[in-house]
Amino acid sequence: MKAKDIRDELSKSEIESLLSDAKSLLTISREVTARLLTAGFSIEQKSDKSLVTSADTEIEKKIREEISRKHPEHGILGEEFPETQADADFKWILDPIDGTEDFTRGLPFWGTIIALHYKGQPLIGVIDHPALDLTISGARGLGAYKSSKGKTDQVMLPDFALRSTECLALTVRANFERVSKDGPVFDQIVKKHQNFRTFRTVYGHTQAILGNLDAMLEFGVGFWDVAASQVLVEEAGGTYLPLTGENGKGFGALFGQKEVVERLNNFF
Amino acid sequence: MKAKDIRDELSKSEIESLLSDAKSLLTISREVTARLLTAGFSIEQKSDKSLVTSADTEIEKKIREEISRKHPEHGILGEEFPETQADADFKWILDPIDGTEDFTRGLPFWGTIIALHYKGQPLIGVIDHPALDLTISGARGLGAYKSSKGKTDQVMLPDFALRSTECLALTVRANFERVSKDGPVFDQIVKKHQNFRTFRTVYGHTQAILGNLDAMLEFGVGFWDVAASQVLVEEAGGTYLPLTGENGKGFGALFGQKEVVERLNNFF
Repeated sequence: MKAKDIRDELSKSEIESLLSDAKSLLTISREVTARLLTAGFSIEQKSDKSLVTSADTEIEKKIREEISRKHPEHGILGEEFPETQADADFKWILDPIDGTEDFTRGLPFWGTIIALHYKGQPLIGVIDHPALDLTISGARGLGAYKSSKGKTDQVMLPDFALRSTECLALTVRANFERVSKDGPVFDQIVKKHQNFRTFRTVYGHTQAILGNLDAMLEFGVGFWDVAASQVLVEEAGGTYLPLTGENGKGFGALFGQKEVVERLNNFF
Repeated sequence: MKAKDIRDELSKSEIESLLSDAKSLLTISREVTARLLTAGFSIEQKSDKSLVTSADTEIEKKIREEISRKHPEHGILGEEFPETQADADFKWILDPIDGTEDFTRGLPFWGTIIALHYKGQPLIGVIDHPALDLTISGARGLGAYKSSKGKTDQVMLPDFALRSTECLALTVRANFERVSKDGPVFDQIVKKHQNFRTFRTVYGHTQAILGNLDAMLEFGVGFWDVAASQVLVEEAGGTYLPLTGENGKGFGALFGQKEVVERLNNFF
């Protein structure tokens, strides 16, 4: 007997409706970022030395208001404000601007991350890169989709066996040292897999979900940084493994092409 | 008495005309890449294990033909074919697709690099990223310009003193080891400057020339990889230092904001 997936409690139309709600939240983040990139914004350093701008806080505040208006019974966890209704069945997980430094500098890799989990299982994922006009969105059982330049296509990982090279996406070494002392794990990986690209934002997830890179290794970040990626990569035909650092510190994940994920998993 | 700049032998209108010729060569690279990204292309591994596609060779061949037609007396140095007229006053330096692996995978960071040098001095630089709809171009005395989404703006580095963070663009460590054994130089730099982004293509140059990152450090690459960047960053108000590896192997450069370049120069 196969274990029951708790997400089967939800109907397809219910999931479609929630996915539509999730995607419509991007009108908030797109409007605020476009406006403040022109009008200007304040920049402050947080206690962990990362940056926060008035754009981050305005987006998260407005998205929370919209979720609470439509779904007052849902919980919300976000990077910039305290969690609400932590024991709700439905939990929205938000990173209004992942890659705030890139946002402040005109680098285009920052993104908005919106996830909805149901009873602890990932149901919906949305990653939006406004500066690149690139959105990926998906829901359990409904597939993953890429929208760019007015065109939407379903995302399916390519056949890895046909690739002429193997190329990984990695988070930066600093994330392996930020909340745990796992820097040597990063060193081992890059010694053995010399063909890789490093990313400081969710853009590396995006490229692994699109199948342009063969796997993404994220490490030592917040839950909001990884919360959208599992459902997206699984719906694209890939594999996802959650990771934590030494002593369970920090959130991470290894995901993408099944063969590559299984091989890399030996490092953990 | 100030040393004479040999480029003063050329009139402004002559430089303008050559810049126009350089930019018009992009119609070739844009046409070939758009066509082959749809129709498909062959991929081979070169003796140095880097990739070359039928797009690289078709672009370089057609650009060489066009230059030879317009300027039969000019020399041409390119990544894929032998140098012609090595002792000509004017030398075109070409990398048809920098970042061929990115090109084959759908990552958008590949670019076409076109430079024109006069008696060994950089006169014109063009870096084009078709997948990002982003071109930077410039000529000695005429300024540097960014063209994107139908809009062209002059490029000037921002005031570094107003930055909330300092952030470097670095080539990957593998380039420090590829033709010389300078890996420890990379290690020292990233230990001291923990806020950096690494790039495998000319896209890092682009971001330093645009002033979004504060300096770019390139190392251990071909002459065609660095040939366009000096005139671009100098016209944008920045500083450029050429570099070579141990025993003069490989080409490299350190360029961008004057303060940052001068401070980083201590590592060499």
